[in-house]
Amino acid sequence: MSDIEIARAASKLPIHEIGTKLGIGYENLVPYGHDKAKISASFLASLRDRPDGRLILVTAINPTPAGEGKTTTTVGLVDGLNRIGRRALVCVREPSLGPCFGIKGGAAGGGHAQVVPMEDINLHFTGDFHAITSAHNLLAAMIDNHIYWGNDEDIDTRRVTWRRVVDMNDRALRQMVGALGGARNGFPRETGFDITVASEVMAILCLASDPADLETRLGGIVVGYRRDKSPVFARDIKADGAMAVLLKDAMQPNLVQTLENNPALVHGGPFANIAHGCNSVVATKAALKLADYVVTEAGFGADLGAEKFFNIKCRKAGLKPAAAVVVATVRALKMNGGIAKSDLAQENVAAVVRGAVNLGRHVENIRKFGVPVIVAINHFTSDTPQEVAAVQAFAKELGVEAILCRHWAEGGAGIEELAQKVAALADSGIADFQPLYPDDMPLLEKIEAVAKGIYRASMVTVDRTAAEQLAQFEAMGYGALPVCIAKTQYSFSTDPAALGAPENHKVHVREVRLSAGAGFVVAVTGDIMTMPGLPRVPAAESIRLRQDGMIEGLF
Amino acid sequence: MSDIEIARAASKLPIHEIGTKLGIGYENLVPYGHDKAKISASFLASLRDRPDGRLILVTAINPTPAGEGKTTTTVGLVDGLNRIGRRALVCVREPSLGPCFGIKGGAAGGGHAQVVPMEDINLHFTGDFHAITSAHNLLAAMIDNHIYWGNDEDIDTRRVTWRRVVDMNDRALRQMVGALGGARNGFPRETGFDITVASEVMAILCLASDPADLETRLGGIVVGYRRDKSPVFARDIKADGAMAVLLKDAMQPNLVQTLENNPALVHGGPFANIAHGCNSVVATKAALKLADYVVTEAGFGADLGAEKFFNIKCRKAGLKPAAAVVVATVRALKMNGGIAKSDLAQENVAAVVRGAVNLGRHVENIRKFGVPVIVAINHFTSDTPQEVAAVQAFAKELGVEAILCRHWAEGGAGIEELAQKVAALADSGIADFQPLYPDDMPLLEKIEAVAKGIYRASMVTVDRTAAEQLAQFEAMGYGALPVCIAKTQYSFSTDPAALGAPENHKVHVREVRLSAGAGFVVAVTGDIMTMPGLPRVPAAESIRLRQDGMIEGLF
Repeated sequence: MSDIEIARAASKLPIHEIGTKLGIGYENLVPYGHDKAKISASFLASLRDRPDGRLILVTAINPTPAGEGKTTTTVGLVDGLNRIGRRALVCVREPSLGPCFGIKGGAAGGGHAQVVPMEDINLHFTGDFHAITSAHNLLAAMIDNHIYWGNDEDIDTRRVTWRRVVDMNDRALRQMVGALGGARNGFPRETGFDITVASEVMAILCLASDPADLETRLGGIVVGYRRDKSPVFARDIKADGAMAVLLKDAMQPNLVQTLENNPALVHGGPFANIAHGCNSVVATKAALKLADYVVTEAGFGADLGAEKFFNIKCRKAGLKPAAAVVVATVRALKMNGGIAKSDLAQENVAAVVRGAVNLGRHVENIRKFGVPVIVAINHFTSDTPQEVAAVQAFAKELGVEAILCRHWAEGGAGIEELAQKVAALADSGIADFQPLYPDDMPLLEKIEAVAKGIYRASMVTVDRTAAEQLAQFEAMGYGALPVCIAKTQYSFSTDPAALGAPENHKVHVREVRLSAGAGFVVAVTGDIMTMPGLPRVPAAESIRLRQDGMIEGLF
Repeated sequence: MSDIEIARAASKLPIHEIGTKLGIGYENLVPYGHDKAKISASFLASLRDRPDGRLILVTAINPTPAGEGKTTTTVGLVDGLNRIGRRALVCVREPSLGPCFGIKGGAAGGGHAQVVPMEDINLHFTGDFHAITSAHNLLAAMIDNHIYWGNDEDIDTRRVTWRRVVDMNDRALRQMVGALGGARNGFPRETGFDITVASEVMAILCLASDPADLETRLGGIVVGYRRDKSPVFARDIKADGAMAVLLKDAMQPNLVQTLENNPALVHGGPFANIAHGCNSVVATKAALKLADYVVTEAGFGADLGAEKFFNIKCRKAGLKPAAAVVVATVRALKMNGGIAKSDLAQENVAAVVRGAVNLGRHVENIRKFGVPVIVAINHFTSDTPQEVAAVQAFAKELGVEAILCRHWAEGGAGIEELAQKVAALADSGIADFQPLYPDDMPLLEKIEAVAKGIYRASMVTVDRTAAEQLAQFEAMGYGALPVCIAKTQYSFSTDPAALGAPENHKVHVREVRLSAGAGFVVAVTGDIMTMPGLPRVPAAESIRLRQDGMIEGLF
């Protein structure tokens, strides 16, 4: 059965029954249909004094085309924890609408470890991304409107950094000249669109602790610079209040369920390169009040995802993760060991061992944050016992357990062993979380700390303009922010082809950007695409609504 | 009390109780929160064989800055009908999000005749407009993507007519050059954005009879022309299926309630100039199955709104309106009689009589469609008995009743007399609806039929290019479509300053557009703005989320 067939065959509980499992009355849910709901802001506020459960991060080796199954493992682990009698809750990101029309496939887990309703979650869901798009574009419209009506703030129209967003893969919008057509349309200037998940508003929504903090952060967005080079803030344009109003409902986390009727919060979804790639702080904090074990994930491999989860999200939100799970697959380790995708069906223990250095490096890195680690081997039917044993032997040498998990095929029953071990690890109290670098380190040194400590680069070089901007950001008072490095997800290095565990490579910072509202400084290495295009034959061409109301071709 | 204070003080029933009033079980509702729901597609399909209730159109004299209260009267009339024991249902349009940030004020009725929850309805509501924006922009992205990957359809990049949309007042997007930045971003070309309510997808959603018809109409959108001048359809780009999937939920009508807990369907909201300006056919048809009296409205004055309601919506959907109500106010009649807004507080019976010719003309026009008419005088506190009597005397001469209504101040209790008269008129069976012109009349003659028959122009002139295009549309097989004239709403003529009942004026058609999917040909007279701008001090500047979660400054 395909993912979508399994999802459609699920016997979902009405969402109020899922709420009941968490002790949330129906009056504190804001239903969206019968299988989705938001948790009301007032209920969230009432949780403040409850004790926190334990936070478990699911991260992974560097992604390969072979697939790792990070969301699948996150969902499966929660089903496993509930099966062994623990009150556990999933906390994952919302998928982006645009990419659904490019390449077939969704993002809500897979096999027998999924969150449902899968189609709704991948389409409009509860409208959060639409609200983010609206809030982002309201600010953009207000900036051009401010300039049009006299430009009291003296904004330099050449230095407006705020672009527009759309939740669509549309390369024609990447770069444009707008406000053409004469005086009544404004002052022509170069600008463009990014995809909604790349919006700073998305990152803000995911890092804000409550609606008041949301508004403050929105007001703190730097939208451009004046002729005297001083920053212009969203609050100077008086857009922050209306943006917060547009985001009022979107700030409430979305409750859905796993295939095994366990609760899942699916909320927020910032890019994991130019942003921090984690679900919302509001959802994570609510989850910690509602369950004993909260299992969450971070984007891409641990070099990007876990690093940002620890250094940005946990630091800023005061979260203390109790354990981390690194997901690996035999297939992906083989690719890291130099095997082509077409040859993966062949047993190759030597390649597994060669590729396992990638896993080893991630395990080492996570330990630097004081968080205990365990490895989940996400089983594929083609894996041989010898290959699995090779991974386990490798892990043993590292002093870490590697548990074979069959949740994709078997659901929670296939991941009970990992659930037992993870619960014990989280309960052990050995975690002693600390970020990699202190707040008061200069920005460039923070970039070096990550590049050398996590990526294992020997050297960091920075474009002159970027170096000047870093100094400028510090002069503006943003020196205490964490850094968010945009790097290829395929390698520890900035070369996507360098698999395994490269070291002594060079990291070059081409560009830096200030996300003052979200609260981090982005360092861009290489070419980061913030507006994808559609492929030659987009998935959209075969998507159709069947006579019976079912969607065809989306997954 | 202000509109928003009244709306917030409303004691709303849970939406499932509103559903119960209509005989809709909770399982057939798709809730959005506890006070909004969609009616499920499957339930709608099950209604097919039920008898229809009576359809009543609420229209108005030409709008003036004094306000007429068409939606207010529509809502009030339904409250009145329910008070006198009739099963009546409101059917109105959804307001657009963008304009809320320009000028303070919403669009959900006023005073004691409103639909609630007012704030949600005016903000994201159930996401319909966001879905329309997504579907529209997916098609746009697929067109540029098609060109990028080789342009198999040989689209002339100078003749792509499909623009993009955003639900925001953003003048900087009116005209732009996109796909800049080199080969990887596509082929640069001029294009721009309209506001979402101007999207042909909006018009299609509102005219489609069911999801299958929706997909057919979407496929029939003409997106541009080939080098050989032949039209390129959305179905040539293979976008129709995915667009229909994005609109799946949006096709289901939204159920809310009036302040007096009577059911209201609020669904769809096309522009009333370049589109037909009515709520959805799906909602209207569902309403006719669910209630004995369905009260709906059409955009602007009767010259635009009622004409399009009759000639486009009723013609295409096979609807037979049983009665029409023309809303007039003493203040607006005085403005039509030449009085400035600042002088309206002064009693001026002579001005009322002078301005009443506007009302008279609309009454005459509606009779041409075979629909019996009644006049609702929407009472303002400043109106004097002599002024009201003057309107009633004028109406009497026309052979039409004019009923004073106090629903704004008193709710349904203030409009019982009108409710009685309207019910009697609708029940009388004297309606004999027919459109103004037959399908097989040439397009230019159809334009003339409306311009002469409704606007009372003596002559229609057409730009040469527009005339050629009309001939081209006929050659393409679109000669049987109705016409949709985009004209100023302030006057019967194309001169917004010509109030009262001008005649023997000239109508000049500057431009024509083909809305092949929606099923009409647009004739543009004068300057029609499809992307508004924000004012010098946008309402957004004072909109804020209060500590208690309430919105400040929106209304």
